[in-house]
Amino acid sequence: MSSPLRIAIAGLGTVGGGALTILRNQAKLLEIRCGRPLQIVAVSASNKNKKRDIDLSGLHWVDDTASLADDPDIDIIVESIGGTDGIARTLVEKALANGKSVVTANKALIAHHGVALAELAEKTGAVLAFEAAVAGGIPIIKTLRDGLAANRFSRVIGILNGTCNYILTNMWETSRSFEEVLKEAQALGYAESEPSFDVDGIDTAHKISILTSLAYGCAPSIDNVYIEGIRRISLRDMKFADELGYTIKLLGIAVQTATGIQQRVHPCMVGKNSMLGTVQGVYNAVLVEGDFVGRVFLEGRGAGANPTGSSVVADIMDIARNVKYKPFTLPIASLPHENFVGINSLRCSYYLRLSVIDKSGVLAEVTNIFKKHSISLRSFLQHSHAPNETVQLVLTTHETEESRMLAAINEVAELDFMRDHPYMIRIENL
Amino acid sequence: MSSPLRIAIAGLGTVGGGALTILRNQAKLLEIRCGRPLQIVAVSASNKNKKRDIDLSGLHWVDDTASLADDPDIDIIVESIGGTDGIARTLVEKALANGKSVVTANKALIAHHGVALAELAEKTGAVLAFEAAVAGGIPIIKTLRDGLAANRFSRVIGILNGTCNYILTNMWETSRSFEEVLKEAQALGYAESEPSFDVDGIDTAHKISILTSLAYGCAPSIDNVYIEGIRRISLRDMKFADELGYTIKLLGIAVQTATGIQQRVHPCMVGKNSMLGTVQGVYNAVLVEGDFVGRVFLEGRGAGANPTGSSVVADIMDIARNVKYKPFTLPIASLPHENFVGINSLRCSYYLRLSVIDKSGVLAEVTNIFKKHSISLRSFLQHSHAPNETVQLVLTTHETEESRMLAAINEVAELDFMRDHPYMIRIENL
Repeated sequence: MSSPLRIAIAGLGTVGGGALTILRNQAKLLEIRCGRPLQIVAVSASNKNKKRDIDLSGLHWVDDTASLADDPDIDIIVESIGGTDGIARTLVEKALANGKSVVTANKALIAHHGVALAELAEKTGAVLAFEAAVAGGIPIIKTLRDGLAANRFSRVIGILNGTCNYILTNMWETSRSFEEVLKEAQALGYAESEPSFDVDGIDTAHKISILTSLAYGCAPSIDNVYIEGIRRISLRDMKFADELGYTIKLLGIAVQTATGIQQRVHPCMVGKNSMLGTVQGVYNAVLVEGDFVGRVFLEGRGAGANPTGSSVVADIMDIARNVKYKPFTLPIASLPHENFVGINSLRCSYYLRLSVIDKSGVLAEVTNIFKKHSISLRSFLQHSHAPNETVQLVLTTHETEESRMLAAINEVAELDFMRDHPYMIRIENL
Repeated sequence: MSSPLRIAIAGLGTVGGGALTILRNQAKLLEIRCGRPLQIVAVSASNKNKKRDIDLSGLHWVDDTASLADDPDIDIIVESIGGTDGIARTLVEKALANGKSVVTANKALIAHHGVALAELAEKTGAVLAFEAAVAGGIPIIKTLRDGLAANRFSRVIGILNGTCNYILTNMWETSRSFEEVLKEAQALGYAESEPSFDVDGIDTAHKISILTSLAYGCAPSIDNVYIEGIRRISLRDMKFADELGYTIKLLGIAVQTATGIQQRVHPCMVGKNSMLGTVQGVYNAVLVEGDFVGRVFLEGRGAGANPTGSSVVADIMDIARNVKYKPFTLPIASLPHENFVGINSLRCSYYLRLSVIDKSGVLAEVTNIFKKHSISLRSFLQHSHAPNETVQLVLTTHETEESRMLAAINEVAELDFMRDHPYMIRIENL
């Protein structure tokens, strides 16, 4: 047996606690698989006396978290503090500069500072690994980086935020509104008291920007992600979606287009029996399309101490086994300045719901506008109703450009029988 | 840029041709990702003049395939000849003994001789990699070995043979018999003219024995796989399955039981909307259950030049990037002599179809036998029929032991109103 790998865990919340539990409970198995012991030599967090589920007895507690980076008796640091800057960033920078490898689940840190950190790691030969930053227990980083490395990727699509998928699944299953289900999710601890990060799509944006960097060999660019969250999704749209054969999911999507890479996060209608359409509750999933492998689909738990800990410990094991990959697959100097394109160049099918006063000629006026913009309609739904009530008109289109669609919507919005702004959801063909 | 990795491809059928095409068409991209060129320096196959889809111009042809193992200008050999023994085995043995790394898609070779080959590789420091041997383009070997390496696996379940899944899917979709669909599949080239290897479950057995070795860190043991193919599956049973909420799939299953590892290949009823139940046509899929990660599901193309080539080239890229894992995760000396258990110790639910003469008291006699064997019934189906016709009685049971179930079936088979031997299919709860 070789010398132990000496590990410090900084941050003892969900991720750090999960990694600690696995390293402890699975110690013997991990030692056999790695050919050396994985030893926790220090732990640190902001508050030593906080009530925790995990037992810290027998562990060496360090008050000054940043000092872990300077301790010559530590080989690698698990950063599970979180946050884009602050102590997490300082610790990781110092550790890498000192040649210590870092394993982290911190997607914000990687999405914002990943390239600078990878550059530091490159200089000192340290490893920077972040499997747990995207899709919890699903090994999607490794899959893009090595399992499917022989492919060019045309598209990477993921359900990457368990909170959003839980809310959407529950709204549908229990016929309740976004607000009601969000409140319940907060009470159950499935959603934060400040839910914006999740429900407004920011967390998914961080994650898709990381997947983009792995799939296309470029620097993560969170500024080039179009972001739209799920707050406006209503049960009414879910019902129409179902009638049309779809279900609504919040997707993170990276696509190689003719003019550049497009990154977007928004609610999508997808086939209700499609691979992504059947992903329920807190599960995450990623669909990858490679030019040779075709479609590969991965599904698993996207959050929680155990699945996330599983990915953190897998990264630690790679370091223990001396397996080294470049964080973004290429040397930093070779990372291309990728050409990103905005959402305007998107081509897809659209769902559009119009609240209109029921009077004759409505449909003709609407369809004329679509005709003028050369948008071809695919289907049309209108439910029976009492006379003079507000009617919900639902249209879906064949593929068309986003810019064209928005122009048509703006024109439709001005029609005098409209009761509300038109509501549009993109349809992703899988 | 470092020196090129010099590759020889032995065997130019589906797998070898696929790898060749990717190495050629994707050369620039692979060179960027690996930091060095991947260069095909020699090709060899049994017949140089055979008509092939791939263009061999500009490639160095070698007549004596085995001599590739001795050529000092070759770094790694792609073995895509196939077969458990013969030239494939000779070539791989010689190459590994000479310190050349080997990438292969040959599941029979690995299932039967994997440990001896890994031992040779260990001695010389060569790599032996076989991602393409199981589930085509799905990186399931790497997923078990590194992505989910922090877990103990309770169960690994796969749809691992595209031919069988294609036949079963088509029987159901087109309401045709096994024989009819098999004939069509043979005409289309989806099934071999000698289909036994696929439809009798042997190919799936090779693959599950390899997944067992990765999941449990043991030598592959094909002799300890219970094998039953799909020849007896009828449309009638598919219809009953559907009525009960199931679909029929050929599964390869490895389970950790209290007394040892159980490996089995047989048709199973699985929930028709379950992850494995929705896998259609030639797709393969694997469901892995880890103690920390929970369930992880992977789906993708299980065969064909491009998906299999994708996995072969991924293995080549790991070698080019100097990434080394032990073929069966552990050093050969540490591989435990695993305790395998047979199918008799299986506990599961069962589907049983009885062809009986319609007369009073039949159900009572049957249920009495089950009661005597302490088997609890879960559901019962019988379709309306004309008087005095043969009736199909369908029963499903709660979980019980295989040995108990077989004893009951043997007793039922002796009843005087039975028209045919009872037909049993195991139900796998997912």
